[in-house]
Amino acid sequence: MIEVEPIGWVRGGRIEAVDDDWGDVEATIALDPSRFSPDALLGLDGFSHVEVVYCFHLLDPTDVVVGTRRPRGNPEWPLVGIFAQRGRVRPNRLGITTVELVAVDGLDVRVRGLDAVDGSPVLDLKPYMAGFAPRTPVHEPEWALEIMRDYWHRP
Amino acid sequence: MIEVEPIGWVRGGRIEAVDDDWGDVEATIALDPSRFSPDALLGLDGFSHVEVVYCFHLLDPTDVVVGTRRPRGNPEWPLVGIFAQRGRVRPNRLGITTVELVAVDGLDVRVRGLDAVDGSPVLDLKPYMAGFAPRTPVHEPEWALEIMRDYWHRP
Repeated sequence: MIEVEPIGWVRGGRIEAVDDDWGDVEATIALDPSRFSPDALLGLDGFSHVEVVYCFHLLDPTDVVVGTRRPRGNPEWPLVGIFAQRGRVRPNRLGITTVELVAVDGLDVRVRGLDAVDGSPVLDLKPYMAGFAPRTPVHEPEWALEIMRDYWHRP
Repeated sequence: MIEVEPIGWVRGGRIEAVDDDWGDVEATIALDPSRFSPDALLGLDGFSHVEVVYCFHLLDPTDVVVGTRRPRGNPEWPLVGIFAQRGRVRPNRLGITTVELVAVDGLDVRVRGLDAVDGSPVLDLKPYMAGFAPRTPVHEPEWALEIMRDYWHRP
């Protein structure tokens, strides 16, 4: 086992994990003031986007799937392995999302488009570098395109 | 504290964390056979790329930086906060890299371009979906472009 310690927590945004329409949601990632000073964020405002690593802490560990499931339980989509989808019910309950950086203020990082609910423990922040994007053509199955259709929709 | 358990380990690839030339490196992510069956990977081969979450396990936790450092210790680059860079010496020692999927064979996932050394504990695999890429223009500081210049270079 490996122990990790939250570097901070999500404050604001949604209080419930819903499927879609995350694009306009703004939230703050508040770093733990007992461990960090604003130095830890120095220069982050030079980047437009940040990768946020967080924990799906509301998920009961007994609900984790280790085999297959249909994404969102949708009968129109195929059974796929838990590591072939990005759903919450996964071993280690880790979520990763690239968000827009709105502002950095002291220990607070204001972001837009974070699909983590209020109170989620944050385990890491990494600046988004275009050099880490795929360097060969991307392809994915049809269901993966469909599942994202309204994910960032701004109502 | 949050406990996470490796879902598998990196086998092969490099044995030492060097700075550059990772593009051609092939390695296998071997899922833990005591916890998973090949079902966990069902359908992953429909994706061209996979996000790998792993632990920089060779890093002594006492070497973790919580404030600022110059990326790679390069005096020509600015002092930046640990969460404004992607270096290893970070709280929770988590690495995230999007790699090319070469093949899935039973519990083995063959990948190309994984910048994790042989033996690294893997904490999650997520299929890369283009829908999770940034949806607004990306910008980053000059040093971030320079640090990536030879990172994927194929010697």
